[in-house]
This record gives sequence, C-alpha cells and structure tokens, in this order.
Amino acid sequence: MFQRPRGTRDFAPDEMARRRLALEKMRETALRFGFREIQMPTFEELELFTKKSGPGIVDELYAFKDKGGRDIALRPEMTAQVMRFYVSDLSSLPKPLKLFYFGPCFRYENPQSGRFREFYQFGAEIAGAETPETDAEVIALASAIVAAVGLKGFVVRVGYIGILRSMLKDLKFSDADIAMALHFLDKNDVEGFTKFASQKSISKETVDRIFSIRNLKGGIEILDKLDDGKAKDYLRETMNFLSILGVKGYSVDLGIIRGLDYYTGMVFEMDAPSLGAEKQICGGGSYDLVPLFGGEQVFTTGFALGFDRVLIAAENEGVEKSIDELDIYVIPVGEGSLEKALGIVETLRGSGLRVDYDLMKRSLSKNLKYASLVNAKRVVIAGEKELAKGAVTLRDMKSGDQREIKIESLVNEVKK
Amino acid sequence: MFQRPRGTRDFAPDEMARRRLALEKMRETALRFGFREIQMPTFEELELFTKKSGPGIVDELYAFKDKGGRDIALRPEMTAQVMRFYVSDLSSLPKPLKLFYFGPCFRYENPQSGRFREFYQFGAEIAGAETPETDAEVIALASAIVAAVGLKGFVVRVGYIGILRSMLKDLKFSDADIAMALHFLDKNDVEGFTKFASQKSISKETVDRIFSIRNLKGGIEILDKLDDGKAKDYLRETMNFLSILGVKGYSVDLGIIRGLDYYTGMVFEMDAPSLGAEKQICGGGSYDLVPLFGGEQVFTTGFALGFDRVLIAAENEGVEKSIDELDIYVIPVGEGSLEKALGIVETLRGSGLRVDYDLMKRSLSKNLKYASLVNAKRVVIAGEKELAKGAVTLRDMKSGDQREIKIESLVNEVKK
Repeated sequence: MFQRPRGTRDFAPDEMARRRLALEKMRETALRFGFREIQMPTFEELELFTKKSGPGIVDELYAFKDKGGRDIALRPEMTAQVMRFYVSDLSSLPKPLKLFYFGPCFRYENPQSGRFREFYQFGAEIAGAETPETDAEVIALASAIVAAVGLKGFVVRVGYIGILRSMLKDLKFSDADIAMALHFLDKNDVEGFTKFASQKSISKETVDRIFSIRNLKGGIEILDKLDDGKAKDYLRETMNFLSILGVKGYSVDLGIIRGLDYYTGMVFEMDAPSLGAEKQICGGGSYDLVPLFGGEQVFTTGFALGFDRVLIAAENEGVEKSIDELDIYVIPVGEGSLEKALGIVETLRGSGLRVDYDLMKRSLSKNLKYASLVNAKRVVIAGEKELAKGAVTLRDMKSGDQREIKIESLVNEVKK
Repeated sequence: MFQRPRGTRDFAPDEMARRRLALEKMRETALRFGFREIQMPTFEELELFTKKSGPGIVDELYAFKDKGGRDIALRPEMTAQVMRFYVSDLSSLPKPLKLFYFGPCFRYENPQSGRFREFYQFGAEIAGAETPETDAEVIALASAIVAAVGLKGFVVRVGYIGILRSMLKDLKFSDADIAMALHFLDKNDVEGFTKFASQKSISKETVDRIFSIRNLKGGIEILDKLDDGKAKDYLRETMNFLSILGVKGYSVDLGIIRGLDYYTGMVFEMDAPSLGAEKQICGGGSYDLVPLFGGEQVFTTGFALGFDRVLIAAENEGVEKSIDELDIYVIPVGEGSLEKALGIVETLRGSGLRVDYDLMKRSLSKNLKYASLVNAKRVVIAGEKELAKGAVTLRDMKSGDQREIKIESLVNEVKK
C-alpha cells in the first residue's frame, strides 16, 4: 500500500467541502473589498526565493534541478512571486493595484501540529501610494476574511517598524547594525542588545528608551507616549480608519518586528489564542521589495494568512462546519422505473438543483440509508404505480414526512 | 529581472477571474450531479506514478529526491492519487463514491500551443457497481461541465475497449500480446498488426474482422453490426441513458483504445474541433486500478478533463469572457470627506456589495478613469456639501447618469 508523503494531506469529501466553502467566503470577502485575484506557478527559479529571504532559506525548501539543469524550488511563500509578476507584467496596470491569491506552499520542515510540508496560504497586496487608508485597507481585509469564516476570538496587533528603524538610524547604525539590533529587539533580548549597544558606545538610557518603545502595547492612547512625528500621525490615522472600517479587537503593539529587512513602515500580526503556542494566523505590513526584483520603487503593503491554521482555530472555537448537501436523491423502484427516474433527474438538475440517484440497483431501504449518508435533504421515490399516474413520492429526510406529488410540480415544490 | 519558469504561466486579474468563474461553474455542475470534492498533495512518491503508468513515464516527470533521500515527483495526473487515497481512507465510505477534484499537474515536455509544463486538470471518478447508468453518469457529467462554461462545438465519442479485448482474448493472446495488439489498433496500423498477427498464425479474415470493429463509428444504430452479447447490450443501454440525461453530440467510436492497460470496458473521449490538431479535451472510461494499489476489486469509472484546453476552446468559439465587476467605487471629494466616505464604504460592504474607494487622494477625473478601468458599475461621489446634507452623488458608469441620493437609501437603491 502506498503512503502519502510525510507532512502532506489528503482531503476527504466532508473536510474538502468545509475547506472549499471557507475559501469561497475568503475570496468573496476579498472581491467585496475590491481586490482582484491572480495566480502564479507552483515552482520558480530557486534564486527568486534566496534573493528575497537569503541563502539560509534553501535548507527549508523543496529545491531541485530540473531536467534542463536549472535550480528550481517549490514556492515556500508567494510574495516573491507577486513581486516578480508585478515587475514583468503588472506594473503597467492602473494603481492602486489590489491583488489577492491563494495556493499551496511548501516547506521541508518537521511536521507537527498545525505545520505541514504542503500548506495553504491566502495573501493580498496593494501596490499604490503610501497613505494610512492603504495600510488600513489591508488590515481591514485580513480581519474581514478571518471573520467571514466565523472566527471570533482573534486579535489584530498593529505596529510600525519604521519607528524603531529611524531610532536606530539616528544612532548612525549601518544597515547591518540595524538588522542585528532588530534581531535582538524581535527576541526581546535586553542583555544581548545592551552588550551590542555598548560596543557601539550607546548609553544605557538610549537602550532603555528603545526598549520602552519596543514594549509599547495597548489602545490607541498609548501612542501619546511617542514623540510627535510623521510615524505617530500615520499610525494614529491608520488606527482611526480601522475603527471606521469596522475592524474589531485591534491594538497597538510596537514590538512587532517581522524579522525581515524589507518591512519599512506599518507591520501587523493576527493571533487566534485558541491555537496555543503557535497562535499567529496572519502577518504583514508595508515593505520595499519591488526594486530588489528590478522594478521601479512603488509603495507596497500586504499580508499572508495561514489558511490551515485559520480552519483549525475555527474548529477549536466550535464554528459549525459547512457541508455540501444534496437537494434530492432519486430512487427508482421496480423494473421499468429507471428510465423515467433518469428523466426526472435530468429535469431537476436542469433547474439547478443538486440531484443524485441510485446507480447500483439497490433496495429502497438501502437507498434511503445511502441518501442520508450523502446529506440528501429529500428523497424522490419513483415507483411504477405512481409513475404511471405521472407522480412520485417526495420524502423529507429530516422530518420523515412523505407524500405523493405530480412530477411537473416537483421543481417548484422543492425550490419554494 | 527574474523570469517565470519555462512552460508555466502567471494569471493576471482579468484572466484569473475568467478561470475562477469557469472553475466555479464546473464545480457547481459536479455538485449538481451529486459528486463530492476531494484533494490530494501536489507531489507523491515517484513509485506511485511508475506503478500506474510504467517506468517510461519518469522521463516526462518532475522527479527529484527530497532532503530525506526519498524519490518524489510532482503529479503528472491525479487518478493514481485518487486510487491511493481510496485504498488508504475512502474505501470504507458508502458506495457509490462519486468524487471530483481539480488542481495543477506537471509534465516536463516541450512547451507548445495548449501544452504547458504546469497545467490544470478537472477529474471525476465513481467507485461502485458496473452498471450502464454509472458509466452514463460520468459521461453526462463531463459533457455538462464543458457545456457549463459555454462550449458548444464539442463532440463525445463513446467506445467499449472490452469488445476488442475479448476478441483478442478469444485468439488465446497473452496479456502482453493483447497490449501489443491494442497498440497497433490504437495507431490504426493495419500493416503492423497484420505482420504481428501472422506470427501468431491469425488469419487475414480475423484481422479484417478486428479492424472492421475497430473502425465502427457512428450513431447508436451501428451497434447492430456487432455480434449479440453483454458488451453490446451494455453499450446500447449506456447510450440510451446518455440521451435521457440530455447529453448532446455523442456517437459510437469503437476505435477508442486509450493506450493504457487498465481500461476494461466503456471508454470515451471528447473533442473540441476548434482546437485543431490537439483537439481532445477529455478522456476516460472504466478501469481496474484499485487492486494494483493494494485494495479490493471495485468497479471504477471516471475521466480527466484538460481545464486549460477547454478555456482555449471556449475562447476560440467566442464565448463571452466572464469578468469580476465592482458594484460601487467611492470617491471622497474635499479635505473632510474621507472619514465619512469610509463609513459609507463599510456600510455598503457590510450589505454584501463589492466596494472600493480612492486610496491615493486623487482628483475626481482621475478617480473616474480608474473606476472604469477596474470594472466599477457605479461611482459614489462623496463631496463635502452633499455629505453635510446626508447625501452623495450616485453615478451609473455605463449610462453616465448621475443624481443626488440620501446615504441611507444607497444600499436599497443599488441592490434593487
């Protein structure tokens, strides 16, 4: 017997219905926000990903040589692809460009709860102008998408990496120094940072001041503790727009670092506490990647959302699982009924109803059991006697009520 | 500048909308027929595919070793995966099991018109009992799916490989001989087959008789030329059910061989003549694969449909392209209008409408141009004067008509 590869999953009908219906809600939400869908290949040149994330990422990739000797890799995420696509084809489209995408991504890591080697991401990006409403729009979309699948217990933390970056720049830190300092700040490593700072002759007071900013968390009023400036105004305005756009459960968290060098201004994360230690379901912010891929500078902001984790969180919260239901299951009874029953099936399907019928010439009782197992709401029993009168028996599977009905009334009866 | 890998594609918003809407129609059709969706991983153990298709397929695969030294391959098709999934998890579900699936598949071949290294397949299978209505159901589904996306000029050719197989078996051919003979028949290679047959001391009359069957094509009445038997009755009944299920443009074609050893009975193909030489869009039939993957014998029948080719055929036929439209684009005019405009956006989106707004603080005329480029049906102009009266201007982008309207009437007005 063959096994599926470790860390990958098959989705059986009930689970797949739940995933498809959740994805449809997410897509519909993105369309409701005026975002437009794009799609990129499943694999790319390896260099596309190392360019964005550094050579260290190779260890986590499904990387291989194709038959032409080219180094390729299954995508570990999709933002690098969006940037490549933007530079080659999309940059001429009218701005702002509001894009979303969904698909499988791949990481060679040890499988564990909620982490898979093949996992699914939903992402969105805006390429346009640096305005608070643009950043608010991506946060509002991420929040609305998660709410659309029924998740309630999630929080949105919004920061602004530009604030710490400019404090570090004011200390005359080089780009490499800033990256190192942000690494310590990301881990909240006071000791490490203090040691690093003392080598650069940075005073204890400055270190304390930086950590006091890094640890600012709370309602919009905590922004009062920041010095006046562009970043403060920008963030306050962004938060104000979040409120107008109906986003719930958001707060300020200036400790969001996101670990990657190309984040420039607003950064945000979303958590679903029901997931425990691995609670983050979404991360994003504004970033500067287009020039790295050879394009002209443009303001870009966006997010990636862990589709699998959102579904696990919804399950943990007891969100009711969506299923596919069948409107009608048709059971021919007696030798001569099959053809007439099939004619009824064709008519019902033609009216847009979801209809199945007995393919295995089984008994009425076995068919009723099967109809219930495939989530049929109603059964049509097509017996020879009734068919001769132009009628069938319509049975409600929930109540068990059944009655004779003319075939020509069936569509209207079921659709009413 | 990075290039996308050769033979792969990016899909920009308009093209992706068309693909997504076509796929939604296909999915909805499968659900209407009582099929249920499943999904399998993007890659598998290499052996899964060589077991089904022979070692020769390796040359066409994206095959590689993962970091654990395992031979894996990007899937070239999905039926082998369905069989693996069936044997490990699905065989205990109630029969008949009606399944469908969609996803990217990969073949390392020279890219050419309508052939890509990453391409998309839509497939369906039924595991259940060997009845003509089961085979008719998969053909009817394939036909309805293609019709659902607007394709008109397609034909369905239905054969029965079991007929030639049993003729060859009657000649005391071994399995290997049968495979070789079918290979000649597939290519319609009379000379090759005659030579091969003469080595087996098969008479010229028998060869002629076999080719006369192989070349039977036409309406259901040509079945009269076959000797009476189970296969003839089965095929006639299948065709009769096709007619009742509303399938159009079908005919008998006993020359369909399908090239693979595990097809056993009914086989069918669909062509879209507008595609020219590469006109086949779908192939399928009943097959015997479950035992090969370690499961208990069960009747299985299904098809795989080339999603990309169906879309190209629809384009060739001039089927109107679906697009995503925006219900409303909101333009704030004047300094103080942005917050109020955002409030309107939130209300409209909350009512389920697709709504976007100016993120770039541009002029009214630039915004109107943008609204038209992103397929907005209407524009709301939120100027300070009207907002002060609790009103906005609603403009129809098609007719150019515009009038003042109370904000609270907006949702009803747009939805009516």
